[in-house]
Amino acid sequence: MSYPKAMEDLIADFMKYPGIGRKTAERYAIFTIDKIAQEDLDGFASDISKIKQDVFPCPVCGQLTDINPCQVCSDPKRDKSVIMIVESPKDAFSFERGGTYNGLYHVLHGVISPMDGTGPEDINLSSLWPRVQEKKIKEIIIATSATQEGEATAMYIQRALKNLDILTTRIGYGVPVGGNLDYADDQTLTKAVENRKAY
Amino acid sequence: MSYPKAMEDLIADFMKYPGIGRKTAERYAIFTIDKIAQEDLDGFASDISKIKQDVFPCPVCGQLTDINPCQVCSDPKRDKSVIMIVESPKDAFSFERGGTYNGLYHVLHGVISPMDGTGPEDINLSSLWPRVQEKKIKEIIIATSATQEGEATAMYIQRALKNLDILTTRIGYGVPVGGNLDYADDQTLTKAVENRKAY
Repeated sequence: MSYPKAMEDLIADFMKYPGIGRKTAERYAIFTIDKIAQEDLDGFASDISKIKQDVFPCPVCGQLTDINPCQVCSDPKRDKSVIMIVESPKDAFSFERGGTYNGLYHVLHGVISPMDGTGPEDINLSSLWPRVQEKKIKEIIIATSATQEGEATAMYIQRALKNLDILTTRIGYGVPVGGNLDYADDQTLTKAVENRKAY
Repeated sequence: MSYPKAMEDLIADFMKYPGIGRKTAERYAIFTIDKIAQEDLDGFASDISKIKQDVFPCPVCGQLTDINPCQVCSDPKRDKSVIMIVESPKDAFSFERGGTYNGLYHVLHGVISPMDGTGPEDINLSSLWPRVQEKKIKEIIIATSATQEGEATAMYIQRALKNLDILTTRIGYGVPVGGNLDYADDQTLTKAVENRKAY
């Protein structure tokens, strides 16, 4: 007895997603058959087949959007002199939830990672260079993660921008707000001390 | 800026699955748009909308199958005097991979769990009772998990069967084969000692 072919196909579909291994995919396939109503499966099927038509990267900043240009790029109230560079669409959405940043974004859709064979040409950088040439741009905030890849990407961008007359900044590192020092690692604690501020 | 509506719909679809929370669903939705080809999305959509037509519980044993009755129930070489009761289709597939069990299965598609409001009538038990009345049945192996719910389910079935002249057994508990004793919990070790065998 092996899984029926249609189940194997569905298992393979789920396994395309990051972090979904064989066993998890099997559990999802069984859950699909056992627990989800046909009506909801038809909805899922329709949502997934049309998602790329409905939602696409903004041609200006790369953020995922269903309007062109995206909500932020087309908002006259945003400060168009600042661009924050983020790795993922999620990061821009997170900063928006924070609610205080009022500039523009540039979404890389990845990081430079020689280990994974991802070079500068594989992320959304080509559309960044014409943006930073615009006279109105005064500051570029690099908000990549504090990972090795995030740092390498930040350094690459910072070097590429250094001959332009633009303030280039990196977001602050330290102990997370609400975070217990017990759970902070040594490097975070070191950065937190380096980035200390006088009262 | 909030996620486009089509993304919210897809996020909600993913969140129907067990263990997929909001953040994971967001990551999957972004991955769907950024990394999966339209052709593969169309395949996924087609697989998911027709899975319940192609694969269904065997009317005899409850195992998921694309033939009626399932491969095991319709195999003349299987020992039809033994039925192994399992919680999930996965478990029956796992025992099949083991390759030594040659009897039939009965798949419950769940466990009795008063905490979750799942009673005996909510799992595939109604089709078990006529099966065990058949004269040819000599043994029922209860192979539910060693969890509280699995034990409660095993006890419920064992009580329901005790007036029938059938050998009812429970699978063995102990230290997993290849398992390091360091990682075994106290209850498993206690069971392992109870279930010891003479050389």
